[in-house]
Amino acid sequence: MFYIVGLGLCDEKDITVRGLEAVKGSTRVYLEAYTSILMVPKERLEAFYGKELIVADRDMVETQSDEILKNADKEDVSLLIVGDPLGATTHTDIVLRARALGIPVRIVNNASIMNAAGVCGLQLYNFGQTVSLVFYTESWKPDSWYDRVKENMANGLHTLLLLDIKVKEQSDENLARGRKIYEPPRYMSIPTAVQQIAETEASRGEGVLDPSTTLAIALSRVGGHTPPPGSPGETIVSGTLEDLLHTPAEAFGEPLHSLVIVGKRLHHLEVEYASEWAVDKVRWREVAEKVYGCALE
Amino acid sequence: MFYIVGLGLCDEKDITVRGLEAVKGSTRVYLEAYTSILMVPKERLEAFYGKELIVADRDMVETQSDEILKNADKEDVSLLIVGDPLGATTHTDIVLRARALGIPVRIVNNASIMNAAGVCGLQLYNFGQTVSLVFYTESWKPDSWYDRVKENMANGLHTLLLLDIKVKEQSDENLARGRKIYEPPRYMSIPTAVQQIAETEASRGEGVLDPSTTLAIALSRVGGHTPPPGSPGETIVSGTLEDLLHTPAEAFGEPLHSLVIVGKRLHHLEVEYASEWAVDKVRWREVAEKVYGCALE
Repeated sequence: MFYIVGLGLCDEKDITVRGLEAVKGSTRVYLEAYTSILMVPKERLEAFYGKELIVADRDMVETQSDEILKNADKEDVSLLIVGDPLGATTHTDIVLRARALGIPVRIVNNASIMNAAGVCGLQLYNFGQTVSLVFYTESWKPDSWYDRVKENMANGLHTLLLLDIKVKEQSDENLARGRKIYEPPRYMSIPTAVQQIAETEASRGEGVLDPSTTLAIALSRVGGHTPPPGSPGETIVSGTLEDLLHTPAEAFGEPLHSLVIVGKRLHHLEVEYASEWAVDKVRWREVAEKVYGCALE
Repeated sequence: MFYIVGLGLCDEKDITVRGLEAVKGSTRVYLEAYTSILMVPKERLEAFYGKELIVADRDMVETQSDEILKNADKEDVSLLIVGDPLGATTHTDIVLRARALGIPVRIVNNASIMNAAGVCGLQLYNFGQTVSLVFYTESWKPDSWYDRVKENMANGLHTLLLLDIKVKEQSDENLARGRKIYEPPRYMSIPTAVQQIAETEASRGEGVLDPSTTLAIALSRVGGHTPPPGSPGETIVSGTLEDLLHTPAEAFGEPLHSLVIVGKRLHHLEVEYASEWAVDKVRWREVAEKVYGCALE
């Protein structure tokens, strides 16, 4: 059996009992390490699971999947994915390959940011499509995400923005020379995300994301219960985009960060719930009332 | 500490290790039993968790939450929720109440249908807002869901339809006489859902959900690994709405069921992935190519 096991979002204890059984019964256990990260090092997972983990990078999962699937028709093999196993085609590929090889597959579900974003108090029903925001460079500022947010906003819906992760990237020079030397991983932070948003709003000028009147909720380390030393666990900060822009980077702390843009279909309980984390509670409520038309008590 | 612990979707083993620790350390453990159900009886959870569970109905969670929260500032109390804890305002209410009482709250995330729907192979990124379909009666056929699906379809997005659950409902007669006698629970099945959809499409006539050219994927018992005796586990059936309408009810089996309406932003890998479960593979691919404009190999 080939198990694809979701690990949840924080640490070794977010695996489900079913997932842990699959891991313990597997002869080989791979850890996918390029679409997301947990908040603890691999060694801590290994100690808890009682298994050595083989780190699988994108290349391995996408182009050398036969290596991972080897003998999975005769013994149990697990591939561990941070969050939930499916959601991007990245992992459907390997399932298709397993099917072609006649290997039975089991998905072990877990929380992912796609549903755990509900911790901010906004109803998941009222989220539109999810978008990814990639790192802008001097010459490359892909802004199709703006059109997706615009579609959501037009329907009054919230948007979850997943922020870019760069793992195992090569510098232009190393790439050109074919040197397999990789840059340190980079994770987009809330300040960078909000800056990019303001930049695109300024250049597109369609008023979809006016920094002073658009509410947003910054999510850091969602599900974070037992943080690494020196870093806080789950951190939520709510405010206008401008509020977030003027919040010091330290307030958000370590990665991973994601951002929710609040749509107009807003319930007064949601406003109240997230006011707990507002940079400025008075402004948070004022914008909710006057711009979003939410009747507060 | 007041813990709100997601149980995941199938049985007692879908709890996370962190959630299990919270349950084992709690003096009282409540099981919310009206927004969703697991696939196993309460007794099986109790045996595995080593704890007696107090069933909490909607009335208890929504209006008698102080009873649940009693002493949670001094000892640990857990409220178990099938799926993930947050997503509907139903459970944000009790968090707000806990905050007002100065009781610390921890959310223990887990998989919910909102992200586990990814098992059908469609990318979660391309889902629009989620909608609920309630049981129609002779005189009451609320169809605002149709407008929501229309909004999603206009943007090429998939829609997850959550099907109605009726738990602890009183008959009109018992309600009128104030008798606390409840009807057996009812869970909307795929055949009922597809019939209601066809009925509304016929009455609205806007061509949003043409039964012969709209692709859909029926999801039954998502995450179901160890099904109750006599019933299959997770079952997925894909086809046009008409295909599903003509599929015998037995093919979908026991509850819970949900339905995904496929939007036009469709990748050929998604089509291939879900063709595994197609009622008619040739038609599935044909509609994907000709109606959805998906270039298949």
